[in-house]
Amino acid sequence: MPKVSEDHLVARRRQILDGARRCFAEFGYEGATVRRLEDATALSRGAIFHHFKDKDGLFLALAQEDATRMADVAAEQGLVQVMRDMLAQPDQFDWLATRVEISRRLRTDPAFAREWSRRGAELTEATVARLERQKEAGRLRDDLPTDVLVGYLDLVLDGLIARIASGHGGENLSAVLDLVEESVRAQHSAE
Amino acid sequence: MPKVSEDHLVARRRQILDGARRCFAEFGYEGATVRRLEDATALSRGAIFHHFKDKDGLFLALAQEDATRMADVAAEQGLVQVMRDMLAQPDQFDWLATRVEISRRLRTDPAFAREWSRRGAELTEATVARLERQKEAGRLRDDLPTDVLVGYLDLVLDGLIARIASGHGGENLSAVLDLVEESVRAQHSAE
Repeated sequence: MPKVSEDHLVARRRQILDGARRCFAEFGYEGATVRRLEDATALSRGAIFHHFKDKDGLFLALAQEDATRMADVAAEQGLVQVMRDMLAQPDQFDWLATRVEISRRLRTDPAFAREWSRRGAELTEATVARLERQKEAGRLRDDLPTDVLVGYLDLVLDGLIARIASGHGGENLSAVLDLVEESVRAQHSAE
Repeated sequence: MPKVSEDHLVARRRQILDGARRCFAEFGYEGATVRRLEDATALSRGAIFHHFKDKDGLFLALAQEDATRMADVAAEQGLVQVMRDMLAQPDQFDWLATRVEISRRLRTDPAFAREWSRRGAELTEATVARLERQKEAGRLRDDLPTDVLVGYLDLVLDGLIARIASGHGGENLSAVLDLVEESVRAQHSAE
């Protein structure tokens, strides 16, 4: 048997994730059958599920990628910037709809919900860490506990994902995000 | 043929809507087959579709009921109160998930999206009217256009629906809604 290089494994994993993301985006969670995942990745089911346990595993790996990317932005620039980036990247809209489609599953399948929220934890931690730094620097309002501010920003993020998923993002959302940002900021610096 | 009384028609319509709401809640939008709608309403497909054009018509009629009820609350007490009511009524959670499930359809089916947003218009109008009254009474911040404030409250509402649909409402959402309410209020009355 030929020795498979590390580079090859990484590239193969990338190929699968990119194909699967397109496939989920186009057909939705239910519609992304194994057959369609094969077509989208140009790989056999054997090859795909050598790298990922099952369809759920593939889906959760994509969610993990989102969470990591969003956490990076949140850590440096805050969760509102994550939302501004979403507004600016219409090519991600289709995938976001898939995130919304799993709502019922999250509510009815505790094991899946647990895996899903483990992914979200990374983003929450990055957001909390940044908010704490902002608070120490006097840029954040200090009359509310951090968990309420995080809960607030998370809720707005969920709203934005739902909005984008249903195709009516637009109009004044940029001004709305300004308002969101302002409402967690320290008030004494009111210009 | 016996003359069907007006009362009977109204009662029959009510029976269909209540059954259909439970059916959508339990099986989701796709899963609510005609057969299951018959079971849930205890009526034949002939009787059901005498009152409603098709499954979409039934679904949109339920959305219309939601919109009207929410608009009534929004007109008197504002959109944040609508959200507080949602938090307080866990029995509506299942149906909310169905609202979320149609996101993809809203994005890809313009005719359906048009019908859907006609329902939302009633709620938006009630919200705008109340915000305008609050603004005149000096209780609303006046440094932002009303459409931005409405867009903001709508976004938070979408977030709340998404959150409830996926089963993790809870924790600090009541305090989060206090923050939302405060952030649209006039600041000079800061206690």
